[in-house]
Amino acid sequence: MSKQELLVLGQEDRSAACCPGLVTAPLDEDQAAELGKIFKALGDPVRLRLLSMIASRAGGEVCVCDLTPAFDLSQPTISHHLKLLRQAGLIDCERRGTWVYYWVLPGTLDRLSAFLKTAQAPQAAQTAEATA
Amino acid sequence: MSKQELLVLGQEDRSAACCPGLVTAPLDEDQAAELGKIFKALGDPVRLRLLSMIASRAGGEVCVCDLTPAFDLSQPTISHHLKLLRQAGLIDCERRGTWVYYWVLPGTLDRLSAFLKTAQAPQAAQTAEATA
Repeated sequence: MSKQELLVLGQEDRSAACCPGLVTAPLDEDQAAELGKIFKALGDPVRLRLLSMIASRAGGEVCVCDLTPAFDLSQPTISHHLKLLRQAGLIDCERRGTWVYYWVLPGTLDRLSAFLKTAQAPQAAQTAEATA
Repeated sequence: MSKQELLVLGQEDRSAACCPGLVTAPLDEDQAAELGKIFKALGDPVRLRLLSMIASRAGGEVCVCDLTPAFDLSQPTISHHLKLLRQAGLIDCERRGTWVYYWVLPGTLDRLSAFLKTAQAPQAAQTAEATA
């Protein structure tokens, strides 16, 4: 699955460029615009449920045919939400025959996780205790 | 500052109830609705910049008078964005004389960070290596 590997690598490069952690330094306008788009994609309950269904699936990928039945929404509406998650770099997909299969891009999720984290790393906490 | 402590404690309780990590299990509708509101608050570049200015400030709190000059926006617009961050449980504030002072609520940020994280904890990774 070299296409997926390339995408994930691409994200890791972008991750290095953007952004400092929230508690580290104020974001500049470009960084805030880029991160804002990703958080906006997460700011919808249907998209969050879709993302969690994909992310928590054993084996790492899900057929769209297994996602749609969980919602009282049309197939085009589900596809639209999935497209927004994909445009945000949170998931990717591949068509195989009749169905499209989705998987998460962990680089983006871990980058957001690191950005939001305020708690000190264990080593820093120990140093703080030692000097208290 | 007992009011702040109470709010943070309240958040920690809520954090225990909601939610499983994204890679752990699919979110139910209530969990997705609650988390979606918080991510929606983060899905705007002005709010992300405000949050990062507050979170990265040495001393932990910022006067609204120090936030407004960084933006080409009116004071009421800035106040509206700050209100949305506060309603999402991301920040809190207190009026002292003329000015309002803001600080982040780390419980919410760390809860979101833990929710998004896909990478294995070091201990889990070691166990996986040992059994490989």
